[in-house]
Amino acid sequence: MKQKAVFYHAGCPVCVDAERQLAHALDPARYDVEVVHLGQARERLDEAERAGVRSVPALVLAGAPLHINFGAALQDLR
Amino acid sequence: MKQKAVFYHAGCPVCVDAERQLAHALDPARYDVEVVHLGQARERLDEAERAGVRSVPALVLAGAPLHINFGAALQDLR
Repeated sequence: MKQKAVFYHAGCPVCVDAERQLAHALDPARYDVEVVHLGQARERLDEAERAGVRSVPALVLAGAPLHINFGAALQDLR
Repeated sequence: MKQKAVFYHAGCPVCVDAERQLAHALDPARYDVEVVHLGQARERLDEAERAGVRSVPALVLAGAPLHINFGAALQDLR
């Protein structure tokens, strides 16, 4: 069964680079990757926060948050 | 042809988690992943710095540095 990977971003340049580089580099045989733009999907900010995301871009991989470089703080997206 | 991905770490807990989660999640059909322990392979610190790595754990993916969470600054490993 595939694991879920969620890439949260906010459209910032750092986010776009990280998405292009990392989100699409995961093994498609093992991960279902969903890309979420938190600036547009604000209703998912709570979900991201509960997963431990504090800044974007971030990848939540099998439930664990990985913050990649730094684009914006989650609290600044609210 | 496969692209090169180098995961630099220093054995710290944050590094080990990131390695387990991310370095082994990349698509093996597209990436050759090398794991480098900069605490043990100090002769590769210059190479990491030239690739833009400023802290570990970091993944250099097709030449671009992605800093993942924060374990230690590169300068503190010298």
